[in-house]
Amino acid sequence: MPSFKPEKKFMLLAIAKAREGISKGQAPFGACIVRKGKAVACEHNMVWKSMDITAHAEIVALRRACKKLKKIDLPDCAIYSTLEPCPMCFSAIHWARIPFIIYGASIADAKRGGFNELEISNEKMKKSGRLRVRLAKGFMKKDCVSLFKEWGARKGKKAY
Amino acid sequence: MPSFKPEKKFMLLAIAKAREGISKGQAPFGACIVRKGKAVACEHNMVWKSMDITAHAEIVALRRACKKLKKIDLPDCAIYSTLEPCPMCFSAIHWARIPFIIYGASIADAKRGGFNELEISNEKMKKSGRLRVRLAKGFMKKDCVSLFKEWGARKGKKAY
Repeated sequence: MPSFKPEKKFMLLAIAKAREGISKGQAPFGACIVRKGKAVACEHNMVWKSMDITAHAEIVALRRACKKLKKIDLPDCAIYSTLEPCPMCFSAIHWARIPFIIYGASIADAKRGGFNELEISNEKMKKSGRLRVRLAKGFMKKDCVSLFKEWGARKGKKAY
Repeated sequence: MPSFKPEKKFMLLAIAKAREGISKGQAPFGACIVRKGKAVACEHNMVWKSMDITAHAEIVALRRACKKLKKIDLPDCAIYSTLEPCPMCFSAIHWARIPFIIYGASIADAKRGGFNELEISNEKMKKSGRLRVRLAKGFMKKDCVSLFKEWGARKGKKAY
């Protein structure tokens, strides 16, 4: 597996997307898929906008990256997410063969932030599935956690 | 939680959809979401057709059901799947608050059928997440497993 060093600029893109989502009434999560030093797909959660319970930021970004690259396997990509991917997103990332996951806030942070979470950590999923995916946890955590406050301060916000 | 009895007619719809998928070059999986005795969304795997790694039958059915019912919570629904939902689909079903999962073939059957599976069972996901979802396993298993053979006999089939 190639070496990998998380880069702030890509998490900043994911954070900017999350913020864009907040401004549009969406849940405060963003994700960015990167390939060969370039952002391929940066998306925010679209559950409310699309009325689609599966439209987490990571899933939306995966769909876009597959379409853009015209393939379903993305072994040369990494995914940055402002929040630890939920088990749905973690598994989708596995299906796409992305070997690197970089995240900021943890599932526990999301729970404290007002979100009903499925409490199975990426570490646990990795162990259960005997996977080799590499996890960079808590990357720019403070900035990612602050998104919950921004979202919380917004009128008419909707958790789920 | 209300009582629940799996019905053959809905698994037959899921099987028919899987078969339709096979005929269109898709992976041999189908799912059917049922609400108050009526099928709401029956779909087959669309990974190749949509070039979308997340387009498993259950995910496609969830998206359609959400759109059709104009809501993201489906607590009065059940989902029938020809194959034990993978952890991505299991988690998506959890997010949609569907309390009943009925499946035919198991993850082990899919592996034998030629599919690269993420081997975390629904039972294990349920236990890890301390969830109350009810699972009906191996329902019409023989019919569901036979789909792998039909798919296997097809020229130009593509696993992933």
